[in-house]
Formats: sequence, structure tokens, C-alpha cells
Amino acid sequence: MIDVKDLCLKVKKASRRLALVDAKTKNKVLVAMSKALIKNADAIMRNNEKDLRNAKRNHLGAALIDRLTLTETRIESMAESLCQIAKLRDPVGEIIEKTRRPNGLIIEKVRVPIGSILIIYESRPNVTSDCVGLCLKSSNAIILRGGSEAINSNIAIFDVLNKAAIEHGIPPNSLAFIKNTDRRIVDELLIQEGLIDLVMPRGGESLIRQVAKRSRIPVIKHYKGVCHTYVDDSADLEMAEDICFNAKVQRPGVCNAMETMLVNVKVAHQFLPRMIQRFRDAGVEIRGCGLTRRIVTGIKAATESDWSTEYLDLILSVKVVRDVDQAIDHIMKYGSYHSDAIVTRNRANAAKFLAEVDSACVYVNASTRFTDGGEFGKGAEIGISTDKLHARGPMGLEELTSYKYLIYGKGQIRK
Amino acid sequence: MIDVKDLCLKVKKASRRLALVDAKTKNKVLVAMSKALIKNADAIMRNNEKDLRNAKRNHLGAALIDRLTLTETRIESMAESLCQIAKLRDPVGEIIEKTRRPNGLIIEKVRVPIGSILIIYESRPNVTSDCVGLCLKSSNAIILRGGSEAINSNIAIFDVLNKAAIEHGIPPNSLAFIKNTDRRIVDELLIQEGLIDLVMPRGGESLIRQVAKRSRIPVIKHYKGVCHTYVDDSADLEMAEDICFNAKVQRPGVCNAMETMLVNVKVAHQFLPRMIQRFRDAGVEIRGCGLTRRIVTGIKAATESDWSTEYLDLILSVKVVRDVDQAIDHIMKYGSYHSDAIVTRNRANAAKFLAEVDSACVYVNASTRFTDGGEFGKGAEIGISTDKLHARGPMGLEELTSYKYLIYGKGQIRK
Repeated sequence: MIDVKDLCLKVKKASRRLALVDAKTKNKVLVAMSKALIKNADAIMRNNEKDLRNAKRNHLGAALIDRLTLTETRIESMAESLCQIAKLRDPVGEIIEKTRRPNGLIIEKVRVPIGSILIIYESRPNVTSDCVGLCLKSSNAIILRGGSEAINSNIAIFDVLNKAAIEHGIPPNSLAFIKNTDRRIVDELLIQEGLIDLVMPRGGESLIRQVAKRSRIPVIKHYKGVCHTYVDDSADLEMAEDICFNAKVQRPGVCNAMETMLVNVKVAHQFLPRMIQRFRDAGVEIRGCGLTRRIVTGIKAATESDWSTEYLDLILSVKVVRDVDQAIDHIMKYGSYHSDAIVTRNRANAAKFLAEVDSACVYVNASTRFTDGGEFGKGAEIGISTDKLHARGPMGLEELTSYKYLIYGKGQIRK
Repeated sequence: MIDVKDLCLKVKKASRRLALVDAKTKNKVLVAMSKALIKNADAIMRNNEKDLRNAKRNHLGAALIDRLTLTETRIESMAESLCQIAKLRDPVGEIIEKTRRPNGLIIEKVRVPIGSILIIYESRPNVTSDCVGLCLKSSNAIILRGGSEAINSNIAIFDVLNKAAIEHGIPPNSLAFIKNTDRRIVDELLIQEGLIDLVMPRGGESLIRQVAKRSRIPVIKHYKGVCHTYVDDSADLEMAEDICFNAKVQRPGVCNAMETMLVNVKVAHQFLPRMIQRFRDAGVEIRGCGLTRRIVTGIKAATESDWSTEYLDLILSVKVVRDVDQAIDHIMKYGSYHSDAIVTRNRANAAKFLAEVDSACVYVNASTRFTDGGEFGKGAEIGISTDKLHARGPMGLEELTSYKYLIYGKGQIRK
């Protein structure tokens, strides 16, 4: 076992120095990291092959093996992301608010790094470089704890990035990777309150629940994305069909894909047959409520558990509802407060849906697939939060900062 | 035992309706609550007398009994606070950011209530009305769990407030008070993840540590306030004397009072004798480092534990340091990251101190006693955070909100 506390102390200490590194240096390092990834692509792929051989030996599924696989193109895309992050505005030092009090005190609210961030993730090796890039740009020290499936790939990528960082003046220990995959290390890490400021688990729901349950450090997370689209009786039904199709089919394996479609009873007879035919043509399995199954034949019955299931697959549950209120109640009861949409031409219903659906992202007449840091104009994202504290929705550089108050006086004392 | 889960479900449900109550109604209720407190002052004081009798029977300390005592003036001040909160701007619904994406999507980032907030506090009964006022104004449902010492006072105050709320259209169960003081109820509350969105413990360090350790719900807190003032060699020494005196003596029992004074060695011989004499005249006990004790005689030696002690009393630890770097290192090693000040005329040293002291509030040439929601122009505060997630420093209405993204489309789908 490694000495977890000692490692965290070193990283925390480095974070104090990293907070003072200027934007120019950080951007230079990001570009150097990007180049180093390309230069070392062959070595990284050789290590990736070890992980792939292990994955096949352990009979891991095709989807997981796909997520794990590195190609030249994927490494180029990781390198390109680092260059993109270099181009983003540095959030650190931004003055968020400035006030002058009647007693002459000037109070500045200034953006500062959070400090040290622990990322616990599963199989995708690109998470290693994305998280390093975003944390470095926001001057946060980072501890990476990747899954055992991708351990050889992750170590190879990390070593390339860390070498480039240190060569270009980033304080040593600002980036750390836990090479030992012993699970007890995670438990040790999660009690380092005071040394680690934030934990972000990325992966399946069971991993995230374990982390949230055991951590004494604040955790930002989303467990799952059970996203809904509600087709109102006043919807443009052609638009509704395109939006629903996109939300389900364009990339079914991601958290902002639609899992349940809700349809107003007044348009269900008109809308459902064509919509479901289009889904079936695309290979989508439909699980419906009683009324859905009376309108379209040959549909499997949705069970109670279907309504709260994140399929991450070409499966869709469909329910006919009385009105916008019943749609909202369904979403608040079964949803995961990630991304939910209404398709409507009725302003009052749109306003009601926006006000009462308490999700991170609420859409009118657009696909839930837009919940993404890039699509929101944040340039990149370190994750999506369905928590209500600190950050909600797609998290970019700004969401990786805290703030502090700087108060300038001329000898003021309190009366 | 009460059914904690059932209570939390009811409060969570009420919070959805409370989020939709308009500012006018909320302000009307706050004024009604204020009037009801004055009208029922006698009944509240009769209940307070029960608590005071118990406190004396249990031999509680004078400071605690003082905090517990309600007078007509104190009740008037609680009522006045509610009127002040009514006058503050409603943060709910504020559009924080609005962007138009190249694809025509309009993305609004809008302030919303956090949801349901649990306040766990100790003996001060005014916390009951302050927290109810701030949570109501920010449309957050509230569960109050007050200490047993003030239970009769708190129930009396809460019942008056809750009656006024319900009479004026606030959804029932938006305000809840746990009347049973069984400690196991706290443990039950702290696992209601999903039903309670935020826990704020207010009280002594041991209470706060217990809550932070056991909670599965996000906690915002400060454990203690070990605040420093560093007197630089380039300080205006008269100004330094006034600032240090104010920071220690004006109200020693609060978290933003100075506990350690750091003095640059170059001015220590000039500064310390007069300063310490002034402290002694005010009844302050000094505990000094070796050099302090050589400069001024008759001073008790500070032990290692003194440097991290929050005295909350007329006691001060004093250390002579080599330069601003040693002052910063001391603060980062022993401090609580609450409020720290430098007194200096040297701009470079001020800039260094502001950048490197990673506390919620960092002062140049002013007393740390200004760390307070009112003094910062927030109108009121629900607490002070030394955490780095969500909110840092004094927390007012804005800090009691989250946000969500509202996205307006015209049928956009993701390519």
C-alpha cells in the first residue's frame, strides 16, 4: 500500500504554489502536453494493447472494450482538446463582484482555484488527459484514480503529461496518479478531508453511490440521466418527432439521451403510430403504458421500474399523460433531475414546465442531447452535476473555481 | 421517535410549491411574522424562563445563559431582522447569465432555491427566526433542529412564525421544527439524501464535526475562526495598534475576532511594548513566543496548541516572525481559513498576502471583525463558510440559492 496521507499532503502543498502560476505558463504547458501526446502515441498504444489483451482475457463486453480502445485518431483528439483548453479564458483571478461600503472598505470577490481535486473514474483513458487539462488550466492540483481495466493506458498517458508539466515549470506533485489499483486506497483517499477539497466520481451508478456514501470530502456528481421529453397537445408534431428521435437515437449510450417519452393524451392517437414506427425502423425497443399499447400494437408493457431506468441503449419507455401537470409530476417522481424537455406552442405550458421541473437543464422545443459543456459554450466539461450545491449541469473551468473576498481598508475598525 | 423520513418527504414536497410563491407574498409573510413576534413576546418570554430555570438547575455557564436569555429588546431585534429581510431583493428567478448559441438556442442560467435546508444549532433562540426568515425569503423549505437548552423558547418562537406563515398562504410543511430532542433523530436526518438538499450546522466545533462526519447530505460550515493579524515592518504602527485592538477586544466571543497576532521582527521592539500594555489594560491575557517574552516581561509562554486555539475570550497569542512569508506559512499551518489581515504600507507585501493566504476573507489594513453578512452589504447572514465549495465567507440570500439552465429552442436537434 502507498502512503495515501503523505501523497495528499504533497499534492495539497503543491496546490498552493500552482495557484500562483500565471496563465501564460499554464497555456504553454497545455500545448507542450498536447505535442508530447502525439510524439508518444506509439508507446501509449503499446500500453493500451496490454489493457485490451487483459480485457479480452477477462471477457469484458464490446461497449467497454470500445470505450477502452485508443487509436491514433483518439490520441489526436485528446491532444486537440488540450490545445482547445489552452485557448479558453483563464478563470483564476477574475473579479466577480466589487463593492465599496459606506465606511470606505472595498470588497472584491475574486475567483480562486478550489485547491486539490480527486477524480475517480472507470475505463475511458481520455478522461485522464481531459481532467488534467481542465484542472491545470484552473490551477487545481489533481489526484487521478483510474480503473484497473485501463491502468496501463492511463499510466502511459499520465507519465507523458506529468513529464511535460514538470519540464515547463509546473510545481512537482501538482499532478498525481494512483498507480496501485487496490480498492482500499479509495477508502483511504475519501477520508482525507482538509487535504482534498473536492471529489468527482465519473462512471457507473454503483461506483458513484459507493463514493458518495463513503466520502467525508464534498462530492459533485450525477448518478444517472433519466431524461424525458414531453409532447404537449399544442406541440408542432413534426418538430416533436424530430426532437424525440434525436434525443433517443443520435447517441443512446450517454447521460443526456432520452429514456422516457411522455405524450399528451389529446395528440397520442395522431402522434404515436408514426413516431413509434420511426423508432422501430431505427431498432429502438418500445416499452409502453396501457394506453400506448392500445394505440400501437405489439408493444411490451413497461413495468414500474422501467420509469426510473437509464437504459443507455436503444430502448425507450413511453407513457401517455393527461396534461402538463401529470407530465411534471411523472418527471419529478421518476426522473434524475438531469435534462428534461417540453415540446409545445403553448407559452403558459412552457412557462409552467420550466418553473416546476427542477432539473439541471430544462428545455423548450429542443433535444436534451445539448446538455454538454461544449454545446453550452463552456469549451470543455469535467462532468455534469445533478447536485444543487456549488455547480449544476455541465461543469467547465468556471465551475472548477471557488472564490475569496479581498478587503482593502485604510485602518477601518468595527464600531 | 417521530417518523423522520415521513417528515422529510412532506417538507420536500412543500418545497416544490414554496419555490413558486412570489416575492410579494413572501414579504407580506415576513412582516406578519415580525408583528406576531412582538404580539406574542410575553408568551415567548414565559417559555424562555422555563429554559433559563433548567439552565440554572443544570449549572450551565454564564456565557451560555446570556446567549439563551430573551428580553423584550432581543425579541424586538428578531422582529426587526424579519422586516429587514422583507426589504432585501428576492434572489429567486434572477437571470445570472444569458447566451445565444450559434445554432440559435438561447440558454438562461437562472437562480432557483436550493430546496430543503436542515439547520442544526445550539442554544441561541434568535437563530430560529433568522433562519426561518432567510430560508423563506429565498423560497427554501426549512427543518430546524435546535438544542435542548433552548427547546421551550424555540418551540414558542417557531409556533408563532409558522402560524403566521400558514395564515398568509405559505404551503404547510414549508417550515418544520423537530420538537423531540432525542439525539438519534439527528443521525436519522443526516441520511435523508435526496429529501434534504443542504445541512448547515451552527454551534461549537464538536457539534459541527459530528454532523460533517455523519452526514450523507452536503454540509456547509466553519469549524472555528482562528483569525490572524500580521503587522508588517512597513505598517503604520498606530493604525496597526487600533486594528489589532479592535480585532481582539471589541467582541472577543465571535468567530471573526483575532486569536493570534503576528509581528515582523523589525518593528517588534517598537510595537509590542505599547500594544501589549494596551491589551493588558483591557484585561487581555497574552501568550507569547520566545522573542515576544524577551521584549515584554511577565508574559506566559505560548504552547504549540495555542497557535491553533480559538479562545473566544480575552486571550491572545503573539508571535514574532521574520517576514511576510513566515507570517503566511504560520497562517496556512495553524489557521482556520476564516479571516486574516495584514497591516502594511508595502504594496508588494499586501499583494503577496492577498494572493497566498487562502482564507475566505483576506484583509489589508482593516479589522477582521468586518467578516459579517451585514458589513459585506448582504443585509443578513445565515452563517459563515470556510468551505471552498458552493459558498465561502458570509452567506446571505444569494448563497441560499442554486441555479438551473433554461434552454429555449425552435426545434434544434444535435448533429
